[in-house]
Amino acid sequence: MNYYSEQITNLIGELSQLPGIGTKSAQRLAFHIISMPREKVERLTTAISTARENIRYCKCCCTLTDRELCPICASEKRDHATIMVVETTRDLAAYEKTGKYEGVYHVLHGAISPMLGIGPADIRLKELMVRLQGDVREVIIATNSSLEGETTAMYISKLIKPTGIKCTRIASGVPVGGDLEYIDEVTLLRALEGRTEL
Amino acid sequence: MNYYSEQITNLIGELSQLPGIGTKSAQRLAFHIISMPREKVERLTTAISTARENIRYCKCCCTLTDRELCPICASEKRDHATIMVVETTRDLAAYEKTGKYEGVYHVLHGAISPMLGIGPADIRLKELMVRLQGDVREVIIATNSSLEGETTAMYISKLIKPTGIKCTRIASGVPVGGDLEYIDEVTLLRALEGRTEL
Repeated sequence: MNYYSEQITNLIGELSQLPGIGTKSAQRLAFHIISMPREKVERLTTAISTARENIRYCKCCCTLTDRELCPICASEKRDHATIMVVETTRDLAAYEKTGKYEGVYHVLHGAISPMLGIGPADIRLKELMVRLQGDVREVIIATNSSLEGETTAMYISKLIKPTGIKCTRIASGVPVGGDLEYIDEVTLLRALEGRTEL
Repeated sequence: MNYYSEQITNLIGELSQLPGIGTKSAQRLAFHIISMPREKVERLTTAISTARENIRYCKCCCTLTDRELCPICASEKRDHATIMVVETTRDLAAYEKTGKYEGVYHVLHGAISPMLGIGPADIRLKELMVRLQGDVREVIIATNSSLEGETTAMYISKLIKPTGIKCTRIASGVPVGGDLEYIDEVTLLRALEGRTEL
């Protein structure tokens, strides 16, 4: 890797440590960055530094935000009595994109995984339980449909039961536009179990 | 894109302008950067800024380097009478990786392309001609085997002819390990034309 001068090699090295960026991509990015206008490079580095410096967890829902309270928790238009529990900020964004959900969120930042040694204390569950002492009507569990996500959903539902708050789980089934022929058996069975009357 | 707070959205926007990075990759990178240790983020931004600030063209071979003269041009061990002409610094690196080439390079930073409006004056040809006034024995043209690369090779060979300096072109043919069955006709014909005696 000393075919390039030291600073190029260094830049390639730093870039290739990012997820999904191999040596070839890092080289391409490095040469692109070197040929970018100075102002654009400065905008990029400033965006990186300020995001890293200022992004923190929302003190209410634990999502990543640059304010003390995220825009959703701060909004008066949202229904603060309905909390959707998601694993990551990106899952939150996925539901926000639908534009139809009016409630608020709670971001766990992970899921319970005995395999990876992630227990209930390692995700933002304590913060959720604190919120449930307030005025909450329903908790919608929207963790992933994976083994970890399901385990987490079960765990949370058991925690919530004694409080008497309604606890629901998003439906699991055939995705819209999905072709039954190509869908796995577990999903097909779930779709059958979760059938609704027409 | 306002599902995330402003600074995250901004970072995703800047990252997605890089080549080969779409919105999804930019999101993944952004969340990775936010969770990276502070020192690592600083190392990354410093690598970007210093590379952009200090990288310039070698005053002899025009490659990208952080010194006035690149390590290859500055080396006394290299044969300065043999110049290999390449399109980009990455092509130079590709030949350096072989570890067998002893000569020096000349980086054109592009190839003649009437389609894209890139003429002989837009690539580093003038600098090459200046170098040829010195003590040069051979010029090896190693531009790509594309239409633009071939055009550039022809153009350079015509420029060099009057000087009496030996001018060669790297061989075109079947790549090592290549299966004849899967190789295009033009390459097969080139390999036939360029056959050597055993």
